[in-house]
Order: sequence, then structure tokens, then C-alpha cells
Amino acid sequence: MTFVQNYSELRNLPTASVREIVRAGHYTGHTAGLAPGRLQANIVILPETYAVDFMRFCQRNAKACPLVGVSDRASPMMHTLGADIDIRTDVPSYRIYLDGEAREDVSDIRSHWRDDLVAFALGCSFTFERALLADGISLRHIEQNFTVPMYRTTIPTEPAGPFSGGVVVSMRPIKESDVERVTAISSRYPFAHGGPLHVGKPGAIGIETLDRPDWGDACSIGADEVPVFWACGVTPQNAVLNARPDICITHKPGCMLVTDVDESQEVPVFRPAAG
Amino acid sequence: MTFVQNYSELRNLPTASVREIVRAGHYTGHTAGLAPGRLQANIVILPETYAVDFMRFCQRNAKACPLVGVSDRASPMMHTLGADIDIRTDVPSYRIYLDGEAREDVSDIRSHWRDDLVAFALGCSFTFERALLADGISLRHIEQNFTVPMYRTTIPTEPAGPFSGGVVVSMRPIKESDVERVTAISSRYPFAHGGPLHVGKPGAIGIETLDRPDWGDACSIGADEVPVFWACGVTPQNAVLNARPDICITHKPGCMLVTDVDESQEVPVFRPAAG
Repeated sequence: MTFVQNYSELRNLPTASVREIVRAGHYTGHTAGLAPGRLQANIVILPETYAVDFMRFCQRNAKACPLVGVSDRASPMMHTLGADIDIRTDVPSYRIYLDGEAREDVSDIRSHWRDDLVAFALGCSFTFERALLADGISLRHIEQNFTVPMYRTTIPTEPAGPFSGGVVVSMRPIKESDVERVTAISSRYPFAHGGPLHVGKPGAIGIETLDRPDWGDACSIGADEVPVFWACGVTPQNAVLNARPDICITHKPGCMLVTDVDESQEVPVFRPAAG
Repeated sequence: MTFVQNYSELRNLPTASVREIVRAGHYTGHTAGLAPGRLQANIVILPETYAVDFMRFCQRNAKACPLVGVSDRASPMMHTLGADIDIRTDVPSYRIYLDGEAREDVSDIRSHWRDDLVAFALGCSFTFERALLADGISLRHIEQNFTVPMYRTTIPTEPAGPFSGGVVVSMRPIKESDVERVTAISSRYPFAHGGPLHVGKPGAIGIETLDRPDWGDACSIGADEVPVFWACGVTPQNAVLNARPDICITHKPGCMLVTDVDESQEVPVFRPAAG
């Protein structure tokens, strides 16, 4: 196996190699632009006692939480998302929440795994970002290799059981003349947050300043650009702060699970090639 | 309240009136074409012990089972689908399954309700049918007031826990020259089964004859028409035959829940008008 810790080297590798390197703990960074054409996913792992309410929450807030995979009972293998995906090792970086508080980031959760845990995969913005790039829209966080800025907002989620709280959004600066096209393109991807939630005024959705994102890296807005906000798969991490389960494990924002599912599939289920 | 048992009278009534008449037990028939513009839904009611597996099944088979609503714990009110929806009374006809076998059709399930039951609403083909009609496509079952024919197929579902079995499809005869347009229009509605699963040959998906549908009414195919098949929200009723839960209650095929949700909404959550 190639030993790689460098993002730019990973950009040229096939999906299986990316996941192998991640699994071995040799890459713990963000996954934007990796394994082009493959669905990437936000991850939330919860005790099964929370599963029904969490799936209610995803259904009611499908723009922020588009469910693309759920692990089977007592299994860490996410067979509907890939040939060999082990959710305990295949995410570059995990965030461990105990009693609703973020405690540590780790690259492997085998020591935390329990058979009553269920892993949920939620579609992510990388899918529409790829479509935007293919259409000639430039995205600064990919060009400059930083993590997209994410913010808490005052847009409420529709609660379910103990899960509630504001929608979290990601922000990308977009040329004003491109906003309509960007909206149309991203709207084609309902499993990847669809069209923007808001364009233009951070204050209108409860963001005081763009300079201090709650997750990810700050990013300047050019004179000919406006900030465009999409619902973000980090929304459940915010809801977990309110639900306070004894344990919850998520991906570290930006560091997604890379799956084998073709991101153009109508229903995100991996089917091994025949033969 | 108007006393109505006649389908054609109901076609001219607003949503709230349709539901009021259904709730009182005065209409037990099919709901195609009623309450235009409002989302209608297939219903599956199961004990909460089956809920996680059933939602896994819906996620993995989202074309047949697009989840648009889930009731809260110990409540028969589906508040995310309407102002006052009581799932015990608001479906025109229910089918009761005991130990996986269909036992009776009833117009009210108050005597069967238990606090551990969870109601699931799945999007239905009426949404894309309305779009087809608006675009000048004629649909025989609506013109002639019968229930669309539905068939078991050999197309497998992706199993989850005890839920498995073939996909159930609905069939509409479409003029050959309209098939491309019909496909494009229905593909716009991912919460309503999206584009067709198959066009043309019933035998290719395991249907021996179109003359004897498994649910609904048979329907002839004109000389200039082809049979077009869509994934159908009756698929879970087939899966329930395999799962054999002690109790499962569904809508009677064709007789849907009429909700207050605007069917053009990106995420199907009812929000009462302010004030």
C-alpha cells in the first residue's frame, strides 16, 4: 500500500485506494474532491434506542439530513454503500461526543464500537460541488484546499423526539452573475442538500459574522461575489448537543466517508458488478 | 357536513372537506384526482419494534418507498402532514394484516390502535399523475374511474431485517410517442416514485399477464400504447407478507391519505400559515 498523507496525492487515486489509505490511518484530512463520481457521506453513529427518532429527524429535515445509508443491526459493515466499508475505520477523522459534548477527534473507533450502535450516512455537498466544477463554477475551498466554512443558523429544524436545534449551513462565495445557474445545478441533487437555503444576507439567518465559522475555515467574499448558503450534514451534530445521548460518533466536519456508490444513481444502493 | 359517497362529488371539494367526509366514514373509495395539489400518501402502520428495520427498508428502496412522514411515539396524529390528521380515521379504507396475512378491510382503526404503533407515510403516484395530466397526457384509470392495476414483479428489493420481497409496480398504458415525455415528467418527483422502472415487456419483470393484477383493476392496452411500469407504494404490503409482524395496518391500495402538504414542496413538512 502506498503511504500517503498528502491531500494532492490522494486526488489521483481510485476509490478503493483512498479508502485503504484512510482505513490504515494514513490520511486523516478532508475529502473534498477525492474519488470523483463517488458518493461521499456525513456520518452519525448512535445507540439503537435513538434510531427511530433520529430517522424521524432525517425524514422531517431531509434537506439538511438526506439519509443515504443505514447500517444493519449489530454490524459495522455498511454493505449498501460499498464492497467492504467498515464504519469503524473508513472515515478519515471521527468526532466522539459523550453526553452531548464533543470530547476528542480520532482516526479509528474500534475501541468505541458496541453492537447496539447504528451508523447513519447522509448525503453531502461534494456531489453538487462536483457538478458545479464540471460546469465551470470555481469553488474557493477546493482551489485553495481548506475546509468549507459552516455556521449555526436560526432556521429551525422540525424536531423529532430529543433531536432539535437550528439548521447548520455551509457557505460558498459565488459570483453574483452565477447564482441562478448555481441554484439550478445544485437543485438537481436532492440527496446532496439540493438548492441553496439562502443567498446574500448572513444576518437574515442568524449568522452574526462570516469571519468565525462554527466549523471549517473562514473564507473571504470577493467584491463581485455573494455568500450562498446550503443546508449542511453537520446539522445532526448540532441536534446531538440537544439530545445528549450517552455516546454519539460523527465524522469530523469535512472528513467524509468515501463510498462505492455512483453519485448519479437515483437510489444510493451499491450493487456489486455481476460475475 | 355534506354527506357524500360519490367520487365525482368529492372531486370538487377542498382538502379539509374531503378529509372530514372520510373521517366520518362517509367515503371509503379511491382518492385519485381528489384534493388536487395536495400530497397523498401510502400508509404502513407497524409496532415500534419493527420501525428501525422498516425505515432501513424505505431508505434502501426509496423509489418504491419514499418516506414522507412518520408519526411520533404514542401519537396517532401526523402533525408533519397536516393540521389535524388522525391516522386512525383519516384514510378511506384500511387493510388489517395479522401475522402477515390480510384479514379485513375497514374504514376506521380506532379499535385496533395501540400506543406502540408507528405510522409511516410514503409518497404516491398521484403526484406525478397530476403533472402528467397537466401536460396533456391522458390516464385511463382516472378518465374511467377505476383503481390503477398493480402487480408483483421479480425485481428484488434490497432487504432490511425481516423485510424483503419483490418490488410491486403500478401500470399505465401510455402512447408510444409520449413515453419519453412521460419519463421526463415523472422523473421530476423523487418523492413520488420518480421515473418508470420498466417500459414495454411485462414478462421481463416477471409479470405473466396484465389481465389479472394483484391489486386494483385490469386495464386494456391500445394498439398505439405500451404498458409503462412505476415502482409502487404497495411494495411494503408485499414485504409485510414476508416479515409477518403480529399486526400491520395499511391503506387499501388506491385509497390514500390526503394530506395538507403542497405536493410541490421540496421537503414534505406541513407548516401552518402564520397568524
